[in-house]
Amino acid sequence: MKIILVGANGTMGKHVNQMLALARHEVIRVGRASGDFQVKMENPQEVAQFYKKIGNFDAVVCTAGEVAFTPLLSIQDTEWHSSLQSKLMGQIHLVQQAIPYINERGSFTLISGVLGDEHIRAGTIAATVNSAVEGFVKAAACELSKGVRINGVSPTLLQDSVKDYESYFPGFIPVSGENVAQAFKKSILGIETGQIYRVR
Amino acid sequence: MKIILVGANGTMGKHVNQMLALARHEVIRVGRASGDFQVKMENPQEVAQFYKKIGNFDAVVCTAGEVAFTPLLSIQDTEWHSSLQSKLMGQIHLVQQAIPYINERGSFTLISGVLGDEHIRAGTIAATVNSAVEGFVKAAACELSKGVRINGVSPTLLQDSVKDYESYFPGFIPVSGENVAQAFKKSILGIETGQIYRVR
Repeated sequence: MKIILVGANGTMGKHVNQMLALARHEVIRVGRASGDFQVKMENPQEVAQFYKKIGNFDAVVCTAGEVAFTPLLSIQDTEWHSSLQSKLMGQIHLVQQAIPYINERGSFTLISGVLGDEHIRAGTIAATVNSAVEGFVKAAACELSKGVRINGVSPTLLQDSVKDYESYFPGFIPVSGENVAQAFKKSILGIETGQIYRVR
Repeated sequence: MKIILVGANGTMGKHVNQMLALARHEVIRVGRASGDFQVKMENPQEVAQFYKKIGNFDAVVCTAGEVAFTPLLSIQDTEWHSSLQSKLMGQIHLVQQAIPYINERGSFTLISGVLGDEHIRAGTIAATVNSAVEGFVKAAACELSKGVRINGVSPTLLQDSVKDYESYFPGFIPVSGENVAQAFKKSILGIETGQIYRVR
């Protein structure tokens, strides 16, 4: 399979990249400033140009997207804007712009996260954006044609992130990047659509 | 109770307005172009100025917010933008800007909708935005202080809207505006927070 991996150099992306390489897929690694191609996913024209360059492919996998962490009482409008543009609209652009190029029975796998389901201090933007991503996945699954599927993966705190973020996630049991990568595999190689695979 | 009702002149707002009037609450009716005050909820500065004018109050209730209905394959970026600005960010501004003015143990009640849970043709933006609103409500409930509560109401197709929208909602059993207004009442006068009242 020819698979586009956006966020390939990120904490989660590295695990997905390794899993896909082990399974001997052709992986096109995309990052903001690293990888085989540099694409700003917030920019739909840039995303469209990238896909045009690649031609056809079987899957788009996204492990990228940033959200701001700020207590509700001090969230600035610019933080809402940048978070919605990055993790929500960025992933939506990756889907919408790919539609002319993705092969029949291809798939999209987007990333949401535990903060749509459980809440931490300063996590209101993350909760809002993750919920939006999941709403998009479930609805888009009903509208895609030619057997193209779309799923989401919602990981909890990663073992790799414990050192940096543990204090923000009291009582959250971290999961291994390898296990989260398996949820991506389930989405890419499985037959389901409109699912959110929660790795907890 | 002194209650601010945003969208008071809309299909759903009229029912909430009537329910609140019957219960003898003081209702401040807000609309884009009608009501006691005209406020564009997409504009956080305008929302802040409005609240400053009103002073303290016990509840903010929103029955307003527009989303575009377009098939996934032809959604334009401008439609995403206007829908996110209206039904998501508009409602978020109503909450964030009210925090300095809302009374202790006051409440917010926002509106989402059935299209976050069940899907119809051209409903992907609605699904995304409704899910985002619900994610915001659940997270914000954990961050609000002074006993201030926040809930959402998610109505299915309204009886009043059957004539115009029936063909888009095959097999959806419509509900009365009066019953949906009761869900708003439950949120405003009840004790729960972080709930989504689904009226189906």
